[in-house]
Amino acid sequence: MSDRWDTGRTEAFSDGVFAIAITLLILEISVPESEFSNLWHGIAHQWPAYLAYATSFITIGGIWLVHHGIFRRLQYANSWVMRINLGLLMAVAFLPFPNKLLAAAIHDRDAERAAVIFYGATLFAISLLLSALCGVITRDRDLLKPGVSEQEINAILVAATPSLGFYVGVILLAVFAPRVAVFGYLVIAIVSVLRAHGEQATPPEIAEPGR
Amino acid sequence: MSDRWDTGRTEAFSDGVFAIAITLLILEISVPESEFSNLWHGIAHQWPAYLAYATSFITIGGIWLVHHGIFRRLQYANSWVMRINLGLLMAVAFLPFPNKLLAAAIHDRDAERAAVIFYGATLFAISLLLSALCGVITRDRDLLKPGVSEQEINAILVAATPSLGFYVGVILLAVFAPRVAVFGYLVIAIVSVLRAHGEQATPPEIAEPGR
Amino acid sequence: MSDRWDTGRTEAFSDGVFAIAITLLILEISVPESEFSNLWHGIAHQWPAYLAYATSFITIGGIWLVHHGIFRRLQYANSWVMRINLGLLMAVAFLPFPNKLLAAAIHDRDAERAAVIFYGATLFAISLLLSALCGVITRDRDLLKPGVSEQEINAILVAATPSLGFYVGVILLAVFAPRVAVFGYLVIAIVSVLRAHGEQATPPEIAEPGR
Amino acid sequence: MSDRWDTGRTEAFSDGVFAIAITLLILEISVPESEFSNLWHGIAHQWPAYLAYATSFITIGGIWLVHHGIFRRLQYANSWVMRINLGLLMAVAFLPFPNKLLAAAIHDRDAERAAVIFYGATLFAISLLLSALCGVITRDRDLLKPGVSEQEINAILVAATPSLGFYVGVILLAVFAPRVAVFGYLVIAIVSVLRAHGEQATPPEIAEPGR
Repeated sequence: MSDRWDTGRTEAFSDGVFAIAITLLILEISVPESEFSNLWHGIAHQWPAYLAYATSFITIGGIWLVHHGIFRRLQYANSWVMRINLGLLMAVAFLPFPNKLLAAAIHDRDAERAAVIFYGATLFAISLLLSALCGVITRDRDLLKPGVSEQEINAILVAATPSLGFYVGVILLAVFAPRVAVFGYLVIAIVSVLRAHGEQATPPEIAEPGR
Repeated sequence: MSDRWDTGRTEAFSDGVFAIAITLLILEISVPESEFSNLWHGIAHQWPAYLAYATSFITIGGIWLVHHGIFRRLQYANSWVMRINLGLLMAVAFLPFPNKLLAAAIHDRDAERAAVIFYGATLFAISLLLSALCGVITRDRDLLKPGVSEQEINAILVAATPSLGFYVGVILLAVFAPRVAVFGYLVIAIVSVLRAHGEQATPPEIAEPGR
Repeated sequence: MSDRWDTGRTEAFSDGVFAIAITLLILEISVPESEFSNLWHGIAHQWPAYLAYATSFITIGGIWLVHHGIFRRLQYANSWVMRINLGLLMAVAFLPFPNKLLAAAIHDRDAERAAVIFYGATLFAISLLLSALCGVITRDRDLLKPGVSEQEINAILVAATPSLGFYVGVILLAVFAPRVAVFGYLVIAIVSVLRAHGEQATPPEIAEPGR
Repeated sequence: MSDRWDTGRTEAFSDGVFAIAITLLILEISVPESEFSNLWHGIAHQWPAYLAYATSFITIGGIWLVHHGIFRRLQYANSWVMRINLGLLMAVAFLPFPNKLLAAAIHDRDAERAAVIFYGATLFAISLLLSALCGVITRDRDLLKPGVSEQEINAILVAATPSLGFYVGVILLAVFAPRVAVFGYLVIAIVSVLRAHGEQATPPEIAEPGR
């Protein structure tokens, strides 16, 4: 009935975008030459950049794990999966910009609130698109591989969804305490990585056919 | 008779170039520190950069979908496919440069017309190379996988070709109303993503052999 | 019992991060236009940048070889492998920053000691995470492919571990003689590439199933 | 007897480095805002950057084609193939630096000779490493796939080698006429892409086993 896209090349393309977005983050970090006279202090002075780097890296890492969990259960993608996936990649590839603002603004009382909220809004948008991707898949069961159980589908939904509520909470916190909120984003990212689970042990020939 | 190249590695290499070109776009966007005193205004002030980012990202996304649609129907590539594909990648990898000019020039009455036309000319060149790639494939049917029907070949040609005419129209529009023309490029990109279709449902063992 | 992740996509994602981190290193090297009047001298003057480039490139190359050696013996990854691998990628993607500091600081007596020690500490952290990855795998033998012998597991551990001691030694050396220490890092990197070994010749159908 | 590495992951990693090196080239091209008052002139004024971009892109494209031709005939890699391949990637990833110098120096009488020779020396080094890769493979026939004929091995050697002589010639030319030499590099690159050939038509199941 509906159109079908194989998932292999979509995974490869998505992995490329995730890997590049995650690796570009470091390009923005540098110690100005004026701080070379006391370089240890100069290195330590960049702590907001490291905090932003770790938060963005772990966030994208967690999204990659969920994305991996979704796609390995797909037999095919349909056009809506492709479009929402493209939107997700567009939001992920956008993250280095608010990341850069965050790193630069933390030393600046005027700017830090806006930077932290803008950064959180981007994470919220990424999270929303990831939920939309899950939603599309669970609605059209023909896309899933034959062996995928109801239980696994719920596990995917659970892995992707609750972050949305947490992001809203932390963004509200950012209005009053921006610096605390950044650690909130970091905690959400770490928790999402820790909560990502692989398949429960199944016979090898079902677990990964055709790879 | 003619020479043959397998398509797997060409897809991987092309995906790499598409993914990098699409992700580098964000590097050019930044808010100068002088605007940190009112960061929300500074963020909003960068709207031409976001417009250029979205247009370029969705355009490359749409090209990737058509490229994907072409290569999954190929059994082999010949040397002309390899050369034209290399030319296509060269044009796609060039796009971040006119994208940067477009984002920088929109605030500048003198420069915006040239920047919008130059950007459109690059999109036109990309579209032309994509049509050439389709043309080479439809001329040498030996390259196609056994199961590919005449109808599918027409569908590929239809997906790749009409953009050419639209780009000419929007470039002409850019002479008189450059800012409107940028939205024209965006609309063409969105339409090309929406028009991309996967395979009609076929038995799995035909749909994705040898992956 | 435990959860399982297939390794194919994790390898692809890791390769992406390794390849990008290794290629971004060159972006930081440039000859200022003020040295164009005697460009050969200007090119030669950048020797610390080339030294840092070669050291970082060969170090990441050696890590990639060990990573390759680990993953091709894995049947599955578990969640700890995924997490430690993400940590390893985070450390590797961080390397361009200390690399840039190293290249910039070598001409500067005040800064070079700190830059060389900071660079070495990053290499030490990468090496530690690589050892942790080996440790997790050797503890859970269910992850390994059926044909992997005790001897091969030891070979992986030997390839990953001793660098740790060497890095501590060279970092101590850096306190007294920073420039000499940089060559020490280069030697460790070259040795790690030379010591990496492929599989001993085994029947093809065991050596590379399912690729 | 000797050690063996599978080629799939080495191809993926190499493709990543080629794709990134080829795509980073564009980052260095920009039109200074001072030329926005006459942007068409400013765009045209960057012609040396476009010439360098096209030359480097087509050169790396040609190297990728030869690399592709080598690796698809390999059954395994040995440690020397891995090391020389790493050296080749290190030289290819270095190219954006002389490319940047070339683009910046062409307007500068003092600097252009040195920049053109330095650029050519890098291309010569890349070409030398590619020949060394071919040499290692043709010496150890066990690495090749069963179906590879003597004729095909010669074809690989012929595709990789003669560029060496041409590069020496064009570098000598660069001493007297640097700008002409740049077009010489471009011609060598175009010829190497045009000379790259796929496999002669063979039965599909032999042409691409196990992909």
